[in-house]
Amino acid sequence: MTLKLIDSAPQWPNGARCAVCISFDVDGETLVHRRFPDSAPDQVALAAQFRYEPAVAMPRLLKIFAAHGIRQTFFIPGWCIDRYPETIEQVLDGGHEIAHHGYAHARPNMQTPEAERESLQAGIEAIRRVSGARPAGYRAPAFQHSRHTISHLLDEGFEYDSSLFGDDVPYLLGDDTRSLIELPTDITLDDWTKFACLPDFGYMMPIASPSAALEMYKAEFEAAWRHNGMFVTVWHPFLSGRLARAEMIDQLLSHMQQKGGVWFATMSEIARHCRGLIDAGAWKPRTDRIPFSAGPLPSGTPG
Amino acid sequence: MTLKLIDSAPQWPNGARCAVCISFDVDGETLVHRRFPDSAPDQVALAAQFRYEPAVAMPRLLKIFAAHGIRQTFFIPGWCIDRYPETIEQVLDGGHEIAHHGYAHARPNMQTPEAERESLQAGIEAIRRVSGARPAGYRAPAFQHSRHTISHLLDEGFEYDSSLFGDDVPYLLGDDTRSLIELPTDITLDDWTKFACLPDFGYMMPIASPSAALEMYKAEFEAAWRHNGMFVTVWHPFLSGRLARAEMIDQLLSHMQQKGGVWFATMSEIARHCRGLIDAGAWKPRTDRIPFSAGPLPSGTPG
Amino acid sequence: MTLKLIDSAPQWPNGARCAVCISFDVDGETLVHRRFPDSAPDQVALAAQFRYEPAVAMPRLLKIFAAHGIRQTFFIPGWCIDRYPETIEQVLDGGHEIAHHGYAHARPNMQTPEAERESLQAGIEAIRRVSGARPAGYRAPAFQHSRHTISHLLDEGFEYDSSLFGDDVPYLLGDDTRSLIELPTDITLDDWTKFACLPDFGYMMPIASPSAALEMYKAEFEAAWRHNGMFVTVWHPFLSGRLARAEMIDQLLSHMQQKGGVWFATMSEIARHCRGLIDAGAWKPRTDRIPFSAGPLPSGTPG
Amino acid sequence: MTLKLIDSAPQWPNGARCAVCISFDVDGETLVHRRFPDSAPDQVALAAQFRYEPAVAMPRLLKIFAAHGIRQTFFIPGWCIDRYPETIEQVLDGGHEIAHHGYAHARPNMQTPEAERESLQAGIEAIRRVSGARPAGYRAPAFQHSRHTISHLLDEGFEYDSSLFGDDVPYLLGDDTRSLIELPTDITLDDWTKFACLPDFGYMMPIASPSAALEMYKAEFEAAWRHNGMFVTVWHPFLSGRLARAEMIDQLLSHMQQKGGVWFATMSEIARHCRGLIDAGAWKPRTDRIPFSAGPLPSGTPG
Repeated sequence: MTLKLIDSAPQWPNGARCAVCISFDVDGETLVHRRFPDSAPDQVALAAQFRYEPAVAMPRLLKIFAAHGIRQTFFIPGWCIDRYPETIEQVLDGGHEIAHHGYAHARPNMQTPEAERESLQAGIEAIRRVSGARPAGYRAPAFQHSRHTISHLLDEGFEYDSSLFGDDVPYLLGDDTRSLIELPTDITLDDWTKFACLPDFGYMMPIASPSAALEMYKAEFEAAWRHNGMFVTVWHPFLSGRLARAEMIDQLLSHMQQKGGVWFATMSEIARHCRGLIDAGAWKPRTDRIPFSAGPLPSGTPG
Repeated sequence: MTLKLIDSAPQWPNGARCAVCISFDVDGETLVHRRFPDSAPDQVALAAQFRYEPAVAMPRLLKIFAAHGIRQTFFIPGWCIDRYPETIEQVLDGGHEIAHHGYAHARPNMQTPEAERESLQAGIEAIRRVSGARPAGYRAPAFQHSRHTISHLLDEGFEYDSSLFGDDVPYLLGDDTRSLIELPTDITLDDWTKFACLPDFGYMMPIASPSAALEMYKAEFEAAWRHNGMFVTVWHPFLSGRLARAEMIDQLLSHMQQKGGVWFATMSEIARHCRGLIDAGAWKPRTDRIPFSAGPLPSGTPG
Repeated sequence: MTLKLIDSAPQWPNGARCAVCISFDVDGETLVHRRFPDSAPDQVALAAQFRYEPAVAMPRLLKIFAAHGIRQTFFIPGWCIDRYPETIEQVLDGGHEIAHHGYAHARPNMQTPEAERESLQAGIEAIRRVSGARPAGYRAPAFQHSRHTISHLLDEGFEYDSSLFGDDVPYLLGDDTRSLIELPTDITLDDWTKFACLPDFGYMMPIASPSAALEMYKAEFEAAWRHNGMFVTVWHPFLSGRLARAEMIDQLLSHMQQKGGVWFATMSEIARHCRGLIDAGAWKPRTDRIPFSAGPLPSGTPG
Repeated sequence: MTLKLIDSAPQWPNGARCAVCISFDVDGETLVHRRFPDSAPDQVALAAQFRYEPAVAMPRLLKIFAAHGIRQTFFIPGWCIDRYPETIEQVLDGGHEIAHHGYAHARPNMQTPEAERESLQAGIEAIRRVSGARPAGYRAPAFQHSRHTISHLLDEGFEYDSSLFGDDVPYLLGDDTRSLIELPTDITLDDWTKFACLPDFGYMMPIASPSAALEMYKAEFEAAWRHNGMFVTVWHPFLSGRLARAEMIDQLLSHMQQKGGVWFATMSEIARHCRGLIDAGAWKPRTDRIPFSAGPLPSGTPG
């Protein structure tokens, strides 16, 4: 393959072949409360799976990243930030970025506009309380932007979003007057599609072996590397922090480091790099204009 | 295996061992509107996946086909043709065929006969507006012919259909007075069954690695090649146009070209070749007579 | 592994290591009528998949079996027997066994006892009409025996059933006064679990490659061979008769023949062999007594 | 990987690298009664699958364990203990542990507190009747603890539970005054996720080959071995006792024995070892305090 399959990528720092951000969504027990709002206390088995995150998975993953000298981005709902102060401290001590992932993992497109804004502000406050600063980035719970989400994010000064699967490289979401950087990922890079078998959530899926998952992540990374793209995982500590999978992550990190030419960065570093190139006139990304659609298909449209 | 497992194939041009058509269904956001007729504007994440088609996947795929010198068939709903003029221009510039895939992806067997006919005509018009000609071929949205579809297609002068999984080689659908060529495919060749994990559509399926998918497509191609059959993929740019998979397509095309003895053609070229053989008396395909059944099982039929 | 993991197998003829019966369920369009009793005529795509059976898959499979000199058992609903006379003739010409698979594929445990008996008799008549003899064996549609099925089968003089997954070798179903031979299979040996992706039936499953399926079938065959068991597939022509899979079947047959020590037989030959051993006092199988249970758990049983 | 990924493991006896307990859940036909409380007698095919457990799978598995000289833990509902006395005798003769798995497999979190306690006591009595002693351990049916389960277990003097996925090594569940040992497992180690395809239970999943399953179990075992963890399978005889899979178990046991440094033990032996270390001040595990949550999210919590 000598074809160049990506035309629109920014130059990465120091001539790197691609940008890599190992991002995690640290949902904790918010998913239990969302799925079982009334009977959460009787979902003990489910809760125990998610409590594995602060108790076991997060310290383990942070140890692995530290050993590799890599800083990451953790998208954490405000509720988890408030409830797991030790975990948050470990994340901040490691120099990692904490980004916004809602307050209690409500999907924006299932909320009223007011409730969405309230969740957004509660999540911002939770992050400000622990880090002293507002978050730079956002990933919608379950990726589910409402039609208002991007406007809300722009109103609140967010620099980037990472919820959409609209490209292989950064691009812009916005209108004539303002925009934020979209750092896209893909469902293929989400560990739920590899490791989650959760009948309680109607998520009936076979579980991949660590080596099968490693093969898939490597394939996506290699493609990004060959074509100067970006590789952004969406991992969940309760899944990918399990012992044999944490070893897989360690192997993947080693593989990428040995390959060379990789810019490991947090999402906010990538977003700021991109914004800098734009401001300097060195990169002109496309803009996907919001709102995406004016509404439902007009009445009378043929089927 | 020295057994000949296909008896009814036509002779392919220039003594080719098999015919290959890489066909794509370019559904764009029509699927969002069909699944969420009222709340489509709040399905931002889903829409972004489908907007990946015109923005990223289509230019990439067209570049790959151009590099291989292969022309393809794209089944495109009229709504997408009207909405994505640049993409359509790229397709036509590449010498590819645009075929009919409904107007806004309504399934014919969920429509009234009048609505089905309206969609059919709206799709024909959309194609005529951009290409100057009526389409030669049709693939029903979600393959879901109604009992009227074939009659409608014959009334409108279509030459071929490619919605059914009724054979491994072309055959006829019709009655005593008229027929069209069916160019069958199979669900096994549909990339949804390899790459789609779309909980919003109730499509909960594990995602295959590019190499696992390549193995399956090669296995089907090799079997067609050995037995003088036909290999018709059903690919969707939002799935198979993803970076690592586009590389897989490039590899598959290279593999088939190096193998030799392959007739790469558009669907309409295949259909016209078949019709020519029939008219010349050089091939007598079977006819599957429509309608397939007179109705539900008669009352009183034992269970 | 030197452990003997099967203790209860009969001696197979000529000292064979295991018995093999490649059994097929030829359901044709009965599944469409069952799933869509009112709208079957609008299920054109689905019907075309099943019409592939008589048109393409059955002649192909029969050619493969003939080339290997192997006779098989085909479980065919009476409705298909009545509707596809040419296919039936091909089956009988090949020396294969036709066994009972309901009339129009109603599940006995969804029928009234009267309707179940009516289907049973209609299926017997259909087989008698084409073969001149009553069927020796039965497989319930979807395996779904009612509590009455075995009694019905005994009343009608059936020699064997092959619907249950209760053992790895033949055993008896019955009571103190009478019994029939159960020739068990397992869902693992059913090609639906490998090759069916049928959203219309709520059957959302990934499709295995021919080589992955071959590996699984070989693993089960090898285990049966090592432990003197029985290997009974449940294949469906619309799935396993597809081109690349038919080649897989050819390879599996070759593998088993080259391995040696395999008794290829129809189900009725196996059942008669077993009955002969019992009558001669040379084999004492266990009997699973019917009915399996007296009823639901008694009221007051702790949960 | 030279990182130590587990910090909190107890020392295993004789310097073993890890502890292994092959635990089975022997549910028999209780699952049929739970799923089809009224129509269980018409679920003949389903019942036959579960009757395979006492008839075929259990003697086979016990033979394999005996050949390897390994004793195991079997979690068995009281109803099965009462109904399958021969099987229970074989288990006890082999020196294996029988632990509590409910009475008729009701999920505690679907029961009233009174019904849950009744099931708990009925299960204790069933075990006492056959073994002369109360059970030491418990695994909730379908893992589904209610908010009361741990208190009930402590009231009844249980020493351990094995229902939660909260860690990779033993830990404590309790409050300031009392605790029991949790011996966690993980859904990845449950053979339903590898081998069950049970549409009747809405469990639509592809079936793994024995070799694919072996690879996954080995990967988890190797990780536990490298990091001084614990490897606790959750197997079901009707699935893993099938012929080719029983051979897989034999291979896995051989692999682990040849590897060396493995402490094969029953769950109660592991729990007692852990309690001994705690009492001796030689190990200080974390305690996950019950109840996990005070209730649903307070009204007014942002979404």
